[in-house]
Parts: sequence; structure tokens; C-alpha cells
Amino acid sequence: MISQKWAKLLRSLQQKKYRKIEQLFVVEGEKAVLEVLQSDWSVKALFATEDFLQRHAALAQKAAMVQQASPTELAQVGSFQSNDAALAAVEIPAQLDYQEQAVDWVLVLDQINDPGNLGAMIRIADWYGIKTILCSSDTVDLYNPKVIAAAKGSFLRVQLHYGDLNHWLGQTGLPVYGAYLEGENIHQLALQQQGGYLVMGNEANGISPALAQLVSRKLTIPAFGQTESLNVAMATAVLVDNLKRLSAVRS
Amino acid sequence: MISQKWAKLLRSLQQKKYRKIEQLFVVEGEKAVLEVLQSDWSVKALFATEDFLQRHAALAQKAAMVQQASPTELAQVGSFQSNDAALAAVEIPAQLDYQEQAVDWVLVLDQINDPGNLGAMIRIADWYGIKTILCSSDTVDLYNPKVIAAAKGSFLRVQLHYGDLNHWLGQTGLPVYGAYLEGENIHQLALQQQGGYLVMGNEANGISPALAQLVSRKLTIPAFGQTESLNVAMATAVLVDNLKRLSAVRS
Repeated sequence: MISQKWAKLLRSLQQKKYRKIEQLFVVEGEKAVLEVLQSDWSVKALFATEDFLQRHAALAQKAAMVQQASPTELAQVGSFQSNDAALAAVEIPAQLDYQEQAVDWVLVLDQINDPGNLGAMIRIADWYGIKTILCSSDTVDLYNPKVIAAAKGSFLRVQLHYGDLNHWLGQTGLPVYGAYLEGENIHQLALQQQGGYLVMGNEANGISPALAQLVSRKLTIPAFGQTESLNVAMATAVLVDNLKRLSAVRS
Repeated sequence: MISQKWAKLLRSLQQKKYRKIEQLFVVEGEKAVLEVLQSDWSVKALFATEDFLQRHAALAQKAAMVQQASPTELAQVGSFQSNDAALAAVEIPAQLDYQEQAVDWVLVLDQINDPGNLGAMIRIADWYGIKTILCSSDTVDLYNPKVIAAAKGSFLRVQLHYGDLNHWLGQTGLPVYGAYLEGENIHQLALQQQGGYLVMGNEANGISPALAQLVSRKLTIPAFGQTESLNVAMATAVLVDNLKRLSAVRS
């Protein structure tokens, strides 16, 4: 049974304002909750069905508090349409300072608004072994339940830093690549060095003018058809895939 | 003012059953509606704001019927959260027989369930100039409003055929590539010929066993991190990008 107090708190965490006050966010669904419990993130409260708690008795003990709940109760406090096994309230970790590493690839997100897009981009970063994403302060919040749902467990393995992109990119000596509709064809590119930044712009407006001045190389996915644009998460997948392919050729 | 009769009909078109009975589907939002009006698809009814109708007077005449409506009315009959300019009821065209073309690339979708994924894959096909998608009969309906929304105008330029994939692929002489987690590394692939089929499997279960027997070459996107899988639409974008890159190298 989920207490009234917790039900109210959990629902409030769908809003950024309350996530900030409570320093908590919600992870839903059996698979994602299991991944959080297996990680070193701090689970303040776990709400799960009797069945889940029996099957994962040892892992469940990693939560500071455990309450058994029915699928109906879980659905009522969550934002998923079908969340019938488990839900966790997890502590938001302190944001670490960003430290540049010479040979890494870093994804840079300039005002990404759509939570599904951010979640997908975190998953792409994780697939390609990119450990760091720099986000403009106005990029959608990582702890938005839709971002967490779309990112699957990948948010546990990729570090996101929110802050002033112009500041971070203004002082690097690494190449800064940017996604544009008219740049160098990514299929014919050669890389002079391993690692660098890949900047992806806002869904409607692209990369902001101030940041664009810091882009040293404009990249383009060749179009073979008539549509005007690819979704920004799709474009990220394709660009990162090409950069990783080219890096492997070099190394 | 949208009549009661039309309001009821438009809302019913969110369900496949009624789309089949009426042979109509709904396109929402200014940009998509303009693309439909510019195409040779048959618009049975256009509902739009006074402003939209003034700005696009000539195009609006291509609809068999036009009714002026307020943004509130449009939002009430549509499925979008913000659809404040136009909505069209469009006739579902007859499905053409699929005819294989020797050098084309064809995307093959085996039981794709998520409308957002199908929409994204149509958009990817359009970007890369793939004109044909073969869908298993149990793939989500093209005319589902979420598919149409995610596909943007690309559904106007890509032909989808629903039917028996085993039948179509059982009689081809072209290569049949399939997306797998353990296959040939797409970054190190060489193609013997231009064109062929790329099979993408269901979100949870992959390519079905019967169809898998028709796959001549298993392809894999190399993973550099720890996540188990990429979203199927992302994987499609990356695989198609690589196949088109390799085709260009050949030609």
C-alpha cells in the first residue's frame, strides 16, 4: 500500500520544480528499476509488487525503504501507461564538474526540447561508448520522467552536465563538429584526430548563433530523397556512427 | 464551425476499424496539411482557421470540401496536443501490388508495433531515397494518427505495402540483409551489388523465425558501450546510412 504522503510526493516529481526541491526523481518499470538497484545510485524508496519483491529480494534491500504495492497503485503514481511491477524514487546525484579528456568524443546538445529526443540521444551515446553529454541550461531536464523512460538504463552510464556551452567549447583545443544541413558529407570525411565535440542543435532552430562561431567543422548527412530534415535523435545516431567508424579506421 | 457529424467522424478515424469503413484518415498541423494539399492525394475535407484559409486560398480549393474552424475546435477533433491551424480528412489510396525493382533498396518491417517507430522509419526511408517499405500484416497501421504525425510529409513519398513478407522475400534473387545483434560489422562490410532488402524485426522479439530463414546476410551495428540495444528506428537510420554509403562507393 502506497501512503497518501508518498503518492502525493511521487506525483509531484513529474514537475522539475519539485524534483529540485526534493532532489529526487522517479524511475519506472521492472527493467529500469532493476538497473538502478544494481547501480551505485541511491534509491530512497522502492514500490513494487509482491511478485517483484519475491523475485528480487536481495536487490530490493538496497533501497532505503521498500513498500509493497499493487499494479493499480503503481500506475496511479507513475507516468507510464503500463507500469505494473516497480517504481523507485531515486536521489539526484550532485552534478560533477566537466573535465575534458583528450581522446574522448563528447556530445553537445544545444537546447534540445523534446524529452523523447534527449532520452534517445543518451541511449545512442551509451551504445557508442560516449560517456559525456554537455547540455545547454535550457535543454530539457534529464530527470523528466519521459527522458528517463526513453533513455532506458543508459542514463546510469552517461554523464550529463548542464551549463554554459559557449564557456566549455570556448576553451577547448579539440575539434568542434556541428550538425548542419549544408556542410561536409559525412560519408567522405577524413578525421585528423581521434575525439572531439559533436554539437547538435535545437529541433526547430538548429545550433544557436553564438555557439555556431565555435564550430570548427560543419558535418552533413547526405540526403538521397526529398524530405527536408531528419529527426535530431536520428541524425545524432547517424553522425556518431560515422565518427566512430572513422575513428576506428584511424586507430 | 465543424458540424457534429464531421466531428464525430473525425474522432472515429483515430481507430483503424473506422478508417477501414470510411476509407479516410486524418492529417493534422499546418505543414503536413499543406504537403497533402500539394500532393496528388485526395483531400475529402479541410478544416482550417480563417488565417490559414486566407494565406492558402488557392491550395485550399483542392479539397472537396472546406470548413472554417477555430483552433479550439481543431484541437477537439484531432489527436495532436497543439493543432491550431488545419486538419484534413484524406482518402486512403488503394494499395498497389508490390513490383520488385532490381537496383532499389527496400525496407522490410516485421511486426513493428510502435507508431512513433514506424513514422520515424518512413522519414528515414524518405531521407535516403528509399521508395518502398514492405510491412508484415501485423505491423502498426500507416494511417494511425501517431504514425502520420511522426512521418511528417514523408508518407506521401514512400510506398508502404502490407502483406506476407515470406511470400515477397521467398521469390527474390536480391540480397536480403537483416538487422541482428550478432552479425557482420556494418563498418567493415563490402557490398557485392547495389540494392536489396533490409529486414528490421519487432521491437522486443526481433525478426520472426520463418522470415529469418530468408535472410542471406546478418548485419550488426558495432557497439562501443554497455547498452543491450538501440531503438529499432535508430538502428534503421544507422544501417540504411551505411548501406547507402557502401552503395555510393560501388557506383
